[in-house]
Amino acid sequence: MKTFTEYLYFNTKHKREYVRITDKVEDIVRRSGVKDGMALVSAMHITAGVWVNDAEEGLLDDIDNWLDSLTPHGAYPRMKWPEPGQEGPVNAVRTEYLHHRTGEDNGDSHLKSILVHHQVIVPVTDSRLDLGTWQQVYYAEFDGQRRKRVIVKVMGA
Amino acid sequence: MKTFTEYLYFNTKHKREYVRITDKVEDIVRRSGVKDGMALVSAMHITAGVWVNDAEEGLLDDIDNWLDSLTPHGAYPRMKWPEPGQEGPVNAVRTEYLHHRTGEDNGDSHLKSILVHHQVIVPVTDSRLDLGTWQQVYYAEFDGQRRKRVIVKVMGA
Amino acid sequence: MKTFTEYLYFNTKHKREYVRITDKVEDIVRRSGVKDGMALVSAMHITAGVWVNDAEEGLLDDIDNWLDSLTPHGAYPRMKWPEPGQEGPVNAVRTEYLHHRTGEDNGDSHLKSILVHHQVIVPVTDSRLDLGTWQQVYYAEFDGQRRKRVIVKVMGA
Repeated sequence: MKTFTEYLYFNTKHKREYVRITDKVEDIVRRSGVKDGMALVSAMHITAGVWVNDAEEGLLDDIDNWLDSLTPHGAYPRMKWPEPGQEGPVNAVRTEYLHHRTGEDNGDSHLKSILVHHQVIVPVTDSRLDLGTWQQVYYAEFDGQRRKRVIVKVMGA
Repeated sequence: MKTFTEYLYFNTKHKREYVRITDKVEDIVRRSGVKDGMALVSAMHITAGVWVNDAEEGLLDDIDNWLDSLTPHGAYPRMKWPEPGQEGPVNAVRTEYLHHRTGEDNGDSHLKSILVHHQVIVPVTDSRLDLGTWQQVYYAEFDGQRRKRVIVKVMGA
Repeated sequence: MKTFTEYLYFNTKHKREYVRITDKVEDIVRRSGVKDGMALVSAMHITAGVWVNDAEEGLLDDIDNWLDSLTPHGAYPRMKWPEPGQEGPVNAVRTEYLHHRTGEDNGDSHLKSILVHHQVIVPVTDSRLDLGTWQQVYYAEFDGQRRKRVIVKVMGA
């Protein structure tokens, strides 16, 4: 059994940015010598995520808009739903993240990280990433403009 | 150390459909000869998911309604929240997915995939899936009516 | 190759509670004798989750409020969005979970479990959890006040 570990480093231009890392993961797997196994790709920060999805610019914008709609920057909405069994208008109280009492302003980045998950496992078969045609590995930065990292750990035979 | 890989194929009747695959995963684990380890169950598409939850028809409908409420088909809502610190009605701008400029109409399927995650690891102990009493493995199809697949890779001793 | 498995047990005071388990996972990894590999930390229930994020009380409250806003207890909102391309007020129909027809009242706990995911893999390097500075492993109880458990399975060299 072999294990092999490397770290990827990021320092994005924007606060939120989505970086395709499939080729870097593939390169690490090649150098690991593992022919069959699994590669863990896991953010080492609590304001970042890793996902597998499409490399399509429009979709990346959709994902970004959708995430920021559900977990808006600065203050988050506590919903006031209609009573059970009722139909009616939706109200919300917009509350500053309690996390910001620590001096941070990235409460939304933590929620985004939990929503998309911070890691994936990429299967390795015949020394290659065993991904579907359209599957690409992305690093999702939710609080960038500073040095962050991702661990890639390959394990197998 | 052993590794063992098989693929499951799906071609669902409906666009969205939830298929219990626990028995198929258990069968693959049995044939793998792995007594102790992990089984990765991972969708090979960017419009599908895999989760572990209850085999209860009502809940599956709840999950479906809830997912489609948060990531509606055709166009998605960009929320207009009240100002920070304020309470008020919620408005939304309903925007066509930018992803649809490519000719696709499945922007919502991608978001659903990211929301529920596309993979799980099932622990294997004494040659069996080491799941809790109510845990069932599901393939979640969000853009079906065509051939899709899931990789099951078992690794262990 | 080594594998090593233990179970953690919980019986929380409150229905929803977030329990830091990093030290317990680290202790299991130490006793496993695994120097390099992966530790799967996975809830064995369909109304619980496991995540990696910050050990900060304000943030834990933020996460709890946010989750309960998106998947409220008792009845869930089916959104009535404006027409595609339109801006307008958001309405909702508040529907009892269909899952409750079984006599259960924890439909929201299932959705919360799916939203945050029920498991993480912690990388192990040099016999230690290879986590970033602020990463802590949490057990997320969404339907507590009864005995629940988490499997920790360590695999590696």
